[in-house]
Amino acid sequence: MKTVVVGGGDDVSNAFAAGLAEALGLEVYTVYRKVFPDGESYVKLPEEAVSADRVVLVRTMAPPQDKAIMEALMTIDALYEKGVEEVFLVAPYTAYARQDREFTPHEAVSIRALLRTLRRAGVKAYFTIEIHKEESLKHFEGPAFSISPYEYMAPRVRVEHPILVLAPDIGAVDRARRFANAIGAEYDYIVKKRDRKTGDITIEPKQLPAKGKNVIIVDDIISTGGTVAKTTKLLLEQGAESVTVVVAHALLAGDAPRLLHDAGLSQVYAANTLPNRDPSLVEVIDVSPVVAEHVRKVLG
Amino acid sequence: MKTVVVGGGDDVSNAFAAGLAEALGLEVYTVYRKVFPDGESYVKLPEEAVSADRVVLVRTMAPPQDKAIMEALMTIDALYEKGVEEVFLVAPYTAYARQDREFTPHEAVSIRALLRTLRRAGVKAYFTIEIHKEESLKHFEGPAFSISPYEYMAPRVRVEHPILVLAPDIGAVDRARRFANAIGAEYDYIVKKRDRKTGDITIEPKQLPAKGKNVIIVDDIISTGGTVAKTTKLLLEQGAESVTVVVAHALLAGDAPRLLHDAGLSQVYAANTLPNRDPSLVEVIDVSPVVAEHVRKVLG
Repeated sequence: MKTVVVGGGDDVSNAFAAGLAEALGLEVYTVYRKVFPDGESYVKLPEEAVSADRVVLVRTMAPPQDKAIMEALMTIDALYEKGVEEVFLVAPYTAYARQDREFTPHEAVSIRALLRTLRRAGVKAYFTIEIHKEESLKHFEGPAFSISPYEYMAPRVRVEHPILVLAPDIGAVDRARRFANAIGAEYDYIVKKRDRKTGDITIEPKQLPAKGKNVIIVDDIISTGGTVAKTTKLLLEQGAESVTVVVAHALLAGDAPRLLHDAGLSQVYAANTLPNRDPSLVEVIDVSPVVAEHVRKVLG
Repeated sequence: MKTVVVGGGDDVSNAFAAGLAEALGLEVYTVYRKVFPDGESYVKLPEEAVSADRVVLVRTMAPPQDKAIMEALMTIDALYEKGVEEVFLVAPYTAYARQDREFTPHEAVSIRALLRTLRRAGVKAYFTIEIHKEESLKHFEGPAFSISPYEYMAPRVRVEHPILVLAPDIGAVDRARRFANAIGAEYDYIVKKRDRKTGDITIEPKQLPAKGKNVIIVDDIISTGGTVAKTTKLLLEQGAESVTVVVAHALLAGDAPRLLHDAGLSQVYAANTLPNRDPSLVEVIDVSPVVAEHVRKVLG
C-alpha cells in the first residue's frame, strides 16, 4: 500500500508537508494552485500522488480561510476521482474554530459545518494543531486529533530564568502548567476584567508574581492582538522584566504586529501553522515531527 | 407544511429572494452575515426561518466566491440543525462552472467538487441560472436545474431594429436563435480565430452581415471582457451601427468595465445574479419570476 504526503500548494502547507514526510519517511509532492482573474481557484494534482493508494494531504486554513477550504475540497475530490483509496487531512490551522457554539440564538456553528463538510468529502482522519476547543472535533464524526505543540516547543523557546509562565485565563491553565513543567518554571493564570463601557482590560483581582520575571504567556492563538497587547503593558507596569508569548497560531490579523511591538512584547513563538506576518516579532517553530507521531499511529 | 424564502445575507441574494418570494407568494427573511477582522464569516439565521418546514435559500456565488460557498454551507447546516426538514438552494450565479473537466491531466474539476459538496450538505434541489455547461449538473446527483433567462430578458432589451443577434461561437448558437426568435430578428454566429503568438482575435473566415445593424451578442457570461471588447471593435469596424451584449452573468472582473467602454460597447444587459460593477454600462433585469416557475414545480 503506497502512501505519499501532498502539500496543498501554499508555502506554509508545502513546508509543513515536507517536514511531515521526512519524519514519516514518505515521499512528498505538492499541488499546483493558482487564482484566476475573477477570483476562482485552480488546483492541479501532482502526477505522483495519483498512483498512490493513500494520500496525507496537508492544507492549512490560513486567511483567506474560505479559499483554503474550497481548495482542499477540490483537491480531495480530485484525488478520489483519480482512484486514491484514502485521503487523510492535516490542517495545521483549523479556521472557524472559535465559532464553536451559538453564543446568541440562531447563529451558525461554523466549525460544525466545516468539519462535517470535510468528513462528507471523504476525509478518513483529521489532524490539526491545538484547535480552540477540542470537543469541536466531535462534529467530524470520525477519527480527529487536536495535537498539542507546547511540550515540543518549550525547549526551543529561548527565555532566561527566572521565568513565570502565565495562562491568559483559568480555563487555559493546564496548557501553561504543562509548558512550565517542561522547562522547570512556575506558572499562574491571569484574571482579566473588561470594563463594559470603555473596553479597558485590567488584571484583577490578583496581583501576579511577575516582578523581576521573564513572563511567558502560553495561549492557543493571537488574532487581533488587542488583549495580549494590553496584558503585556500591564505586566511590564507590574515590574515584569520581559514578556514573551508562545502560541500555536500567530494569526496577527490587521494591525496586530504594530500593536504588539508598541506594547513592548519581546517575542512571539508560534508553531508553523500560518504565514509569518512579521519575522521581526515572530519566530516560527516547525512542529511537524509532533504531528508525524499521530499520523504514523493512524496509518499503522 | 410551511415554506419560506431566505436571502443569504448579501444584497444581490436578498433582492433576488424578495423577488422570488413575491412570485411564489411566500414570506421572505434574510440571513444576517458579517466578516470578522481575521477574515472568517459569521452567519445568523432569521428567527422566522427556524420554525419553517422547508426553506428556499437564495445565495449567489459572486466574488469572493469561496466565501459565498462557505456561508451557504454554514447556513444550510444551521437550518437543518434547527429542525428545518428540507433546504432548497437557489444560486443565481454558480461559481467554478467553467472548470467543468480536466483540460490538462490531473486538474481538479472544480464544479464537480462544489456540487457534490452542496448535495452532501443536504440540499434537496439546486436551481441556478444558465450554468456554463448544463451537463455539469449531473455532479449534484439530485434534482438540479439550469434556468435560461434569455427569453424572459428579450422583450426587456431596448435595441432598435434592424437587429442582428450573434452567438460568440457556433456552440452557443441555440441560445442566440431563441433570443432572436423572441424578438423577431435574424441571427448568426461568430467564428473567432486567436493568433497563438499574439493572442489577437480576428473574426474568421466568415464576414458577418453586421453592416448597418444593431448587433446583440448573446452569451452566458462576461468575465474579464477581453474577447467581447475585441469582438465589439471588429463589429464596429465592419460597419455595425451599435453593439449590445446580453448575458446571464456580468462578472466584469478587474478592468472589464473600462475595456468595454473603450471598445465602444453600447450597453450590457444582465440578469440579477451578480453585483452591478458599472451601472453606467450594465442594466440589470430581475429574472426571479423565471426561477420561481421552476421552484414552484419542485415545491409542488
